[in-house]
Amino acid sequence: MRPEEARARLRALGFDEAAADVLFAHFADAERRGKLGHGFSRIEWLEALEGVRPDARPEKVLSSPGFDRWEGRGALGYLTLAAICADLEAGPPEQARVVVAADCFPTGMLGHYVRRLAEARLVALLTATSPARLPHPAGGPPLVGTNPLAIGVPAADGPPVVVDVSMGKTTYGDVLAGRADPADLVPFGGEQAHKAFALALGLQLVVESQVGGFGAFLVVLHGELGPVDLERFAGVRLPGR
Amino acid sequence: MRPEEARARLRALGFDEAAADVLFAHFADAERRGKLGHGFSRIEWLEALEGVRPDARPEKVLSSPGFDRWEGRGALGYLTLAAICADLEAGPPEQARVVVAADCFPTGMLGHYVRRLAEARLVALLTATSPARLPHPAGGPPLVGTNPLAIGVPAADGPPVVVDVSMGKTTYGDVLAGRADPADLVPFGGEQAHKAFALALGLQLVVESQVGGFGAFLVVLHGELGPVDLERFAGVRLPGR
Repeated sequence: MRPEEARARLRALGFDEAAADVLFAHFADAERRGKLGHGFSRIEWLEALEGVRPDARPEKVLSSPGFDRWEGRGALGYLTLAAICADLEAGPPEQARVVVAADCFPTGMLGHYVRRLAEARLVALLTATSPARLPHPAGGPPLVGTNPLAIGVPAADGPPVVVDVSMGKTTYGDVLAGRADPADLVPFGGEQAHKAFALALGLQLVVESQVGGFGAFLVVLHGELGPVDLERFAGVRLPGR
Repeated sequence: MRPEEARARLRALGFDEAAADVLFAHFADAERRGKLGHGFSRIEWLEALEGVRPDARPEKVLSSPGFDRWEGRGALGYLTLAAICADLEAGPPEQARVVVAADCFPTGMLGHYVRRLAEARLVALLTATSPARLPHPAGGPPLVGTNPLAIGVPAADGPPVVVDVSMGKTTYGDVLAGRADPADLVPFGGEQAHKAFALALGLQLVVESQVGGFGAFLVVLHGELGPVDLERFAGVRLPGR
């Protein structure tokens, strides 16, 4: 799909220009990074997804020093997380803030958001839940989402370090895009897959302790890495750099 | 080592009764759970560790709504994390709080602390860094700690769910206890070991963005799981339950 077509199809779904821009920026970023399962292939998926409400907008329903709570109000998770990023850019926490978002799905490539926050000089950790995709390593039905953990850390010079790890051997996006075998929707780690399952489970339950349904959990704080912190990694390709 | 001997050797190291009790409780909990690498074998390790200052005590040096900062002040990380837990039990956050601890090493079995916090009705996520133990999956010198991520979530009925995942194929504790091959101090995950390495790296850099040296990073928030949240896991052994 060419960029012009992608944008036109988002507008045709009923999104106004601002919302279409947010979605387009996300999918184009994924394409650029070779994460095709989170790229333009998602537009076809959105076209088939039931209940998409292009006019819905998220709302910050609670804000106290150190804690914000958002409700998606039927908006796509992409738009909710983008609104949260914009809100944090406009009013960063003095030290740290936990942000939870209820009704926040689908959220796409979580690295996208923590990179944006890191570019605004905020350290960020983000997870988000999805429908159950991963079974227990011993087998059985899917029990937990792929529940990625994304971490972005600003560096005093150069781009931030951005880590974005799904707990699945493959991502649902890659299955959707026909690039991965659905049988690989299992926790990663081979004979130690119980570790990735445990991480997915723990992150899922943190989110569920805060919100019903699918949601996101974000921690942002001030801080950055000095040149000396990254010197020891000379010769290693650091994710995001 | 028998419990009486363990306690006596801790006192002989110079710890007063309260501090020895904290350390003993940690090691005894590890023994009970079969995590022998974090159990009484650590007492011998402490006896050989240079620079242990049994009289040192951690201090909370900054506290604002949503954020606390502690300094170990030369105390063992076990004592610092126990002091942080006691402080949170005495004054839990209204919604959420991020706690960072500088000069916080060694910390032991992180599940121990998030279980304690979960028993005080707090959701908790905790990581802590250590000397570099894990190399990049492609080889080379150790670059990052095993940097476990521990997550505890209270349940409305029954014990909390407690997840505690080291990013190493084995733990340093098990190597110390002679129960694991030092060659297994690599990121877990086999052909997807880059994922565990990325998680260890991200968590390490979050800590380093906040503190120099080894430290801990903790997020606590209110919340719990209702019975319905756990129903779908019937038949699966949930960690900690």
